[in-house]
Amino acid sequence: MKKILIIGIGAGDPDYVTMQAVKAMNEVDVFFIMDKGEDKSKLTDIRKDICQRYITNKDYRFVEAHSPEWNRRNSDYHKTIGTLNNDKQAVFESLIANDLKDGEIGAFLIWGEPSLYDSTVRIMETIVSSDRYDLDFEVIPGISSIQALAAKHKTTLNTIGKAVQVTTGRKLLQGFPETADSVVVMLDANDAYRQFIDENIDIYWGAYIGTSDEILVSGKLHEVADDIQRIRTKARDANGWIMDTYILRKNDDPTG
Amino acid sequence: MKKILIIGIGAGDPDYVTMQAVKAMNEVDVFFIMDKGEDKSKLTDIRKDICQRYITNKDYRFVEAHSPEWNRRNSDYHKTIGTLNNDKQAVFESLIANDLKDGEIGAFLIWGEPSLYDSTVRIMETIVSSDRYDLDFEVIPGISSIQALAAKHKTTLNTIGKAVQVTTGRKLLQGFPETADSVVVMLDANDAYRQFIDENIDIYWGAYIGTSDEILVSGKLHEVADDIQRIRTKARDANGWIMDTYILRKNDDPTG
Repeated sequence: MKKILIIGIGAGDPDYVTMQAVKAMNEVDVFFIMDKGEDKSKLTDIRKDICQRYITNKDYRFVEAHSPEWNRRNSDYHKTIGTLNNDKQAVFESLIANDLKDGEIGAFLIWGEPSLYDSTVRIMETIVSSDRYDLDFEVIPGISSIQALAAKHKTTLNTIGKAVQVTTGRKLLQGFPETADSVVVMLDANDAYRQFIDENIDIYWGAYIGTSDEILVSGKLHEVADDIQRIRTKARDANGWIMDTYILRKNDDPTG
Repeated sequence: MKKILIIGIGAGDPDYVTMQAVKAMNEVDVFFIMDKGEDKSKLTDIRKDICQRYITNKDYRFVEAHSPEWNRRNSDYHKTIGTLNNDKQAVFESLIANDLKDGEIGAFLIWGEPSLYDSTVRIMETIVSSDRYDLDFEVIPGISSIQALAAKHKTTLNTIGKAVQVTTGRKLLQGFPETADSVVVMLDANDAYRQFIDENIDIYWGAYIGTSDEILVSGKLHEVADDIQRIRTKARDANGWIMDTYILRKNDDPTG
């Protein structure tokens, strides 16, 4: 029997790691590191730093694998994602078959929260359901970037008794969800917030949250949208990538 | 100068506490415990257990205050919430004025995640903005019950590229949000999931998640809805209260 732990390590700051994650990491034999290219090597370094910091009396090894690339040229979003996940599944199966011995525990350290916009749980469920391996898996939650964002801005995700929708930049381009007054946006490559610039909306934006590169901006959307667009373009150019998220909130108060 | 820490302690299991929360708790002089009546004294016990477990070399004290009651007889929901929050604010101000000395750090230990369906951040922001006190506050995120729920069920909150809406049972009675295929429901006193029993929807339900009383049920809504209703009624009667949450997910697969 082999076992895989999908461990949420929180959004950047090693202090976001939970006691449950620390205990789990101390049981792991092999950490699988999915390499996403040189630009994001900082994320790999943070994962290794977290292991070094919290694993106290256990031998462990890292196995690095190349994470299949997102094909941006393919215009069919779902087909692209489907292909990407098939490729990822093949990589995961190879790791499980070749790099994890019987009786060992392997782990993926997931940035933020494994249940939000991450494919690892879905892929592992598919592999385990296939019954091709004597394999089990567990999921350990972590502080997501949206919780870290709300905490840093000292605000809430929902307003009183109302709904909050968590969505992608791509979905947001279809409009502000009718049944929620707060929207949390992840994975926005297109500055989708700009379409609401003439509405009475507050924005709470953050990039690289929890890391030493953290940037926070908040305010009325029409006042800060240009700043955010300029800052995120500059940061993305400087770092080669950006990981940002934001809350949009309809402001019902006509005076403020 | 006085300081308040709003510390998310996660959803029940003391292992959900983050390293950040542990560090913060070790700085606190006074923990404010909001007493919500005898039925929920177990929640107070868990808070005290978490302090005892994680605070290593610091003197601290508990100050208990009666949490204002929810007036269920008032039919105007927002007015009721407004009154409740005004009453809570008065209690908080009294605690800050009378039970926290200058230079001390006070803390509220929030079940789950402070940014989700909890009024403490909003009330503290109002108090600090009033400038009536020399006061600052910080927010420390915690593992929410919805993350714990997803992890225990080994599922995700969103499906690929789609949105997830976090809402209340009351809001859900207005229908399934059009722009999301997954809905996370908190604070449902009325079994609002039952209205979708004829639709092709999967449910992932859990009560008292992370505690020794934890109950999990999942499956096709039309197959398990009666079980869930029976189990939650029985559990609520036995414990005097229930804290449960669930994910509803539209099942696009016509065969499954």
